[in-house]
Amino acid sequence: VPSQPLVRSRLVFCVVPPDGTSTQVVVNMEESLAVTESALDRVVVYNEFMQHPVDLLADVLVETVGASANIGIELDHISQASFSRLTSRLPNLKIRDARGFFAEARTVKLAEEIDALRRVGRAAHTVHYEALEQTRAGDSELDIAARIVSGLFARGVDDVLRLVVGSGERSWHANAAPTQRRLQEGDMIRLDIFGSLNGYLSDVARTGVVGEPEVDQVEVWNRFLALRRTALGMIRPGASTRSIYNAYAKEMEVFGYEPINFLGHGIGLTLHEEPYIDRYSDTELQAGMVLAIEPYLMLPEKNWGFQLEDEVVVTEDGYELITDVRDDAELIRVGGS
Amino acid sequence: VPSQPLVRSRLVFCVVPPDGTSTQVVVNMEESLAVTESALDRVVVYNEFMQHPVDLLADVLVETVGASANIGIELDHISQASFSRLTSRLPNLKIRDARGFFAEARTVKLAEEIDALRRVGRAAHTVHYEALEQTRAGDSELDIAARIVSGLFARGVDDVLRLVVGSGERSWHANAAPTQRRLQEGDMIRLDIFGSLNGYLSDVARTGVVGEPEVDQVEVWNRFLALRRTALGMIRPGASTRSIYNAYAKEMEVFGYEPINFLGHGIGLTLHEEPYIDRYSDTELQAGMVLAIEPYLMLPEKNWGFQLEDEVVVTEDGYELITDVRDDAELIRVGGS
Repeated sequence: VPSQPLVRSRLVFCVVPPDGTSTQVVVNMEESLAVTESALDRVVVYNEFMQHPVDLLADVLVETVGASANIGIELDHISQASFSRLTSRLPNLKIRDARGFFAEARTVKLAEEIDALRRVGRAAHTVHYEALEQTRAGDSELDIAARIVSGLFARGVDDVLRLVVGSGERSWHANAAPTQRRLQEGDMIRLDIFGSLNGYLSDVARTGVVGEPEVDQVEVWNRFLALRRTALGMIRPGASTRSIYNAYAKEMEVFGYEPINFLGHGIGLTLHEEPYIDRYSDTELQAGMVLAIEPYLMLPEKNWGFQLEDEVVVTEDGYELITDVRDDAELIRVGGS
Repeated sequence: VPSQPLVRSRLVFCVVPPDGTSTQVVVNMEESLAVTESALDRVVVYNEFMQHPVDLLADVLVETVGASANIGIELDHISQASFSRLTSRLPNLKIRDARGFFAEARTVKLAEEIDALRRVGRAAHTVHYEALEQTRAGDSELDIAARIVSGLFARGVDDVLRLVVGSGERSWHANAAPTQRRLQEGDMIRLDIFGSLNGYLSDVARTGVVGEPEVDQVEVWNRFLALRRTALGMIRPGASTRSIYNAYAKEMEVFGYEPINFLGHGIGLTLHEEPYIDRYSDTELQAGMVLAIEPYLMLPEKNWGFQLEDEVVVTEDGYELITDVRDDAELIRVGGS
């Protein structure tokens, strides 16, 4: 239901009773698309202007599980307005927060999910090099963004949720969107690509320098490669995410820098999901988890930002890099003027 | 705060007390970007892993307006989980639903908002023709999407929220995202461009045919141009949106087709906003409103979808087309194989 994130009133609900037969509640404008392109079993529509989607949801609940059923809802993902309309329509529902259930269910991926993540992740990986190969001093951040999107679409990636293209004094900010700023000799460029293929996301980042890199930049990058080797070497079923974070943090500190609060996170239908590899939590890795690993360093005083982010799937005896299959994680050189 | 729509836990809140001094509550990762690139007065950050953003919001409220103030929140835009955490932290707050207030406040645009809407809307308008000019039978929907995004970025549009590129049997579905489907002779193509410039959106749509159009297709299109003339001719301050819809619906019915439930809607920071020009509501137009007007016809039995969407600003004595300034709303011919 593509317009759902864009039109706040076009709510989408999915009801899955114990028998597994799914019903999707969608706006009438997108009935035909939902019927044609969704994998769900049944589509129920509301008139956008005359009916409230929550009333249709209530009808579907009454019909499928009854007005006093136990149901789970992600309470961080339903609005107060919708929740209060639902509970006043069906006051005997017993509602539990399903957030933890879904977060847990999403951690270990199915083979076809890993396949989609691999395809979008590899496309994102390749496009970093391809887009910067075509880039020169004088080009704008938006020029780079256009090359990235064209390259992704040419590889069958079907949506680009957001791009990070930050150069020069913008290179160290987290998640800087592309602007008309033009590249100058000596600028750093940080790219992070959030593409989507059939709903599965990529989160892959690279760093470049316009012209010849300085010695210090090459040194940071080589440290990043070492940090990545350390982290990847610890990834296997049963490993503790805290111990991976701590090993990373220790190497960063020895190197003289303060690490950010996380090194990585799960990725799938959402960009950041469980498990996090961070300073505060601890999760035991399991085979089938897909993780984005991202050493990141902000050096505002030099206008330098560094990031090296790849994705791995946890295998029975270790990990498989699903993005950087050639291990060519160079600090990318962009042609000068 | 670019990652907010992508990472569900990265909530953003903005507090504006009566003195107008704004405070933004953002995730620590994006503090530097918010401080550097936001127009708001003050940024308060939470540690993503150790603090709940709602707790910071509660602190800011206590500090700025007090724990028992009257506050407005868009209750369709705050989750049940956040709302219930806020009310248990500050049980004496008096919370009112601010949805209607904001919807009303957004209807009449400021001059600089109209300027941004004009720039992104014109870029979207131009790019339809430019992208399809480069397109031939055998190209995929994603090829067209790449041309559209490149053209938008080259014109300074800074984000593309979503694209509709539906061809052949997908051309009539509302909001079909681009796929790898390849164009064939005789296909219809429907494009709708949701670009963004500094947060202001475009909603401009065109229709094309691969090869020579059939007589019936040209006839529908000429009817669309007439329908548009009828609708635009009625736009002025004081006009009733219902009367505009009814005139449109009547012409569609005389023509032998069932109209969809709306002809248009406001556009600004959100894609569809008040006022709607629809079958059920009635609003009096005011100068400064910006409207997207979109005759739309789905003919599934022929695999034909038609849409012609442009944007206007209501002026003191009528309207100004801010997208199709040359009135060149042709049925676009795409080169055959």
